[in-house]
Amino acid sequence: MSILKGAAVIGQSGGPSSVINASAYGAIKTALESDAITRVFGMCNGIKGILEDNLMDMSKEDPEELAFMKYTPSSALGSCRYKLKDPDEDETDYIRILEIFKKYDIRYFFYNGGNDSMDTCNKISKFMLRNGYECRCMGIPKTIDNDLAGTDHCPGFASAAKYIATSVMEVYRDSTVYDTGMITIIECMGRHAGWLTAAAALANYKGRGADLIYLPEVDFDLAKFTAKVKEIYAAKKKCLVVVSEGIHDKDGTFIAEYANKNMAKDSFGHAQLGGLAAYLANYIKGETGAKVRGIELSLLQRCAAHCASQTDIDESFMAGEAAVVNAVNGITDKMVGFEREYVNGQYKCNVKLFDLTIVANTEKKVPLEWINKDGDGVEQGFIDYCLPLIQGQTKLTYVDGLPRFVELKKVKAEA
Amino acid sequence: MSILKGAAVIGQSGGPSSVINASAYGAIKTALESDAITRVFGMCNGIKGILEDNLMDMSKEDPEELAFMKYTPSSALGSCRYKLKDPDEDETDYIRILEIFKKYDIRYFFYNGGNDSMDTCNKISKFMLRNGYECRCMGIPKTIDNDLAGTDHCPGFASAAKYIATSVMEVYRDSTVYDTGMITIIECMGRHAGWLTAAAALANYKGRGADLIYLPEVDFDLAKFTAKVKEIYAAKKKCLVVVSEGIHDKDGTFIAEYANKNMAKDSFGHAQLGGLAAYLANYIKGETGAKVRGIELSLLQRCAAHCASQTDIDESFMAGEAAVVNAVNGITDKMVGFEREYVNGQYKCNVKLFDLTIVANTEKKVPLEWINKDGDGVEQGFIDYCLPLIQGQTKLTYVDGLPRFVELKKVKAEA
Repeated sequence: MSILKGAAVIGQSGGPSSVINASAYGAIKTALESDAITRVFGMCNGIKGILEDNLMDMSKEDPEELAFMKYTPSSALGSCRYKLKDPDEDETDYIRILEIFKKYDIRYFFYNGGNDSMDTCNKISKFMLRNGYECRCMGIPKTIDNDLAGTDHCPGFASAAKYIATSVMEVYRDSTVYDTGMITIIECMGRHAGWLTAAAALANYKGRGADLIYLPEVDFDLAKFTAKVKEIYAAKKKCLVVVSEGIHDKDGTFIAEYANKNMAKDSFGHAQLGGLAAYLANYIKGETGAKVRGIELSLLQRCAAHCASQTDIDESFMAGEAAVVNAVNGITDKMVGFEREYVNGQYKCNVKLFDLTIVANTEKKVPLEWINKDGDGVEQGFIDYCLPLIQGQTKLTYVDGLPRFVELKKVKAEA
Repeated sequence: MSILKGAAVIGQSGGPSSVINASAYGAIKTALESDAITRVFGMCNGIKGILEDNLMDMSKEDPEELAFMKYTPSSALGSCRYKLKDPDEDETDYIRILEIFKKYDIRYFFYNGGNDSMDTCNKISKFMLRNGYECRCMGIPKTIDNDLAGTDHCPGFASAAKYIATSVMEVYRDSTVYDTGMITIIECMGRHAGWLTAAAALANYKGRGADLIYLPEVDFDLAKFTAKVKEIYAAKKKCLVVVSEGIHDKDGTFIAEYANKNMAKDSFGHAQLGGLAAYLANYIKGETGAKVRGIELSLLQRCAAHCASQTDIDESFMAGEAAVVNAVNGITDKMVGFEREYVNGQYKCNVKLFDLTIVANTEKKVPLEWINKDGDGVEQGFIDYCLPLIQGQTKLTYVDGLPRFVELKKVKAEA
């Protein structure tokens, strides 16, 4: 093994999660302690921090304060949704990145994000390889959507899943409290993959929980849905529905688009969804005359650090740590992922490395065998998959009854 | 003191909270252990359970299971929004209640709820007094709205406040993660009193948190609001606003009504509000062109037992316990409330009894001296008031990574 001496830079990109900082902290802490790594930089707002020569010197942070990163939601270094062009079309950004790498003698590049971020990491890695600049590039996954290919699951998913299941349990109690009728529709995130919405099924303890769960993996039929709600409501005077923001009809039209045909798109061309719960609530109210409430979990589900899974936090930290350890050991061009193992029936999570090329821009969906035949619920296979991931309550520190989140100094790095 | 032997009945009414069951459990447990109280009944869905002769026998519950009530959100006995008529106009319901009281030899009546419930309790108490039926009637307060007169604060408020402050802290982190612009508008419950919305100010640690907070105690001016948001957004590229559902203009028109003129009303004549965050988000988007997200905390804020204040849980339990202890000791026609004391600078909560007549149907609002002069933020006085109440994290039991809530058998009582 060749020891590669040089600086490391770490960035966060895409929509944050409640544990993405646990991964970043795992990487930063390990890098700061590494003999091979000479300096540790953080990118201000992901790859934009490199393009704009806006890096922070992580050694200037107080180590005790830095440790609060492990339990702080969202991306403490700042995030971006900047999409690098295809280098065959336009090399400008890559040439700039190489320039900054040389300026700071950056030899380790860690990028912490979802599909698009792995694509960014992959493109930079390949560019550096082609241009003979030795730099070890590692992707550290993050996505509440749990849709990255290869890995058994993604850091961030379990904490959002735990929040959703917990909230559905609580809302179930609240929405069934009167003997008068009530229909509740909860909307979860997930454009194309229904992992988060499926997590609502974890709340179904002794028949209390969601009556109907709709994932984007299956076509949604408004008429069939309405009939089902009416049937359940007639029998129980209650109906609790959980839907993914990305549910669509057989023609591929998002149900949320029924309400609003002119939706904004983000810079990756994704439609900006939202308002589905309100739309369906209003629709079902019209169809049934019942009291209907729509609840959109919105940003809450991806930043609820107070309800994070300690398993997820520890695994997220491990992913960041493993990225640095492997890179220092000579590995490059990989994403850190997970593989599950059962040791005497006990869940165990092992690190496994995946080719960035495979991971980038592929979406892993909920397997159809985990969705019931009516397409309105999930099977035990999903529960067995998901349950080990949500174990353990966060060890978050509280001060004055409220979470103590990290406060970074963000000292600008000098070359 | 005369020892009054007889059965006790306890009911829950109105919108639930995450700790209302702690109060009910405090009353049920104490009643079950009391020598004076011969039997303990729960009303199925509040006063409707009496009118419909639908009581449950609390002695049939497993005591260990019953103990989970302390940490279970919403009203485990079931709730109602049934409004008793004025007895001067129609005595039917009261005569029926007296009949059921006699049938089960009920001599202790405990009613757990908010303003309207205290009104119900008061009316029943006065009717029994007038009719010479000896029955000790005690109100056990509950309201996340914190708007009951007399008492220093209400069971349920602090847990919702803690959830709101925590969520605002988390959403702040999430909504400031990009260097692109973002405006976030969070809507809290509170029709006429802004206590819950004010709690968002607890999140303002080192300048991170809500930029603007609007309570219904002050008239809301859409133009002034827009100007403020634009000013903050221009300076910071971010703006986080927290509004109460009940904000209204100087003519008393709810801002939520701007979006929807034909709102449903509940059986107490309250307008059913909602959709304010979405309305304001859309409005501000049009005014600024910025990315704007509206988040309605909806039911989540009143049932988030996983984020409850242990101080609130313990005080709620104490309120239920005190109601029974006082009633057994000869007190009647009162609501249990709280008085705060500072012992060596340390917050202490004492039980104090209030006349039901005074409490019923009076709303306590946030004092104007705790609202800043621009009407868009709160002063330190409120923080000092609120902070002791949110201390301590819930001791909720978790099974398989999820909250363990109570499962009652609800065995129908026989006379």
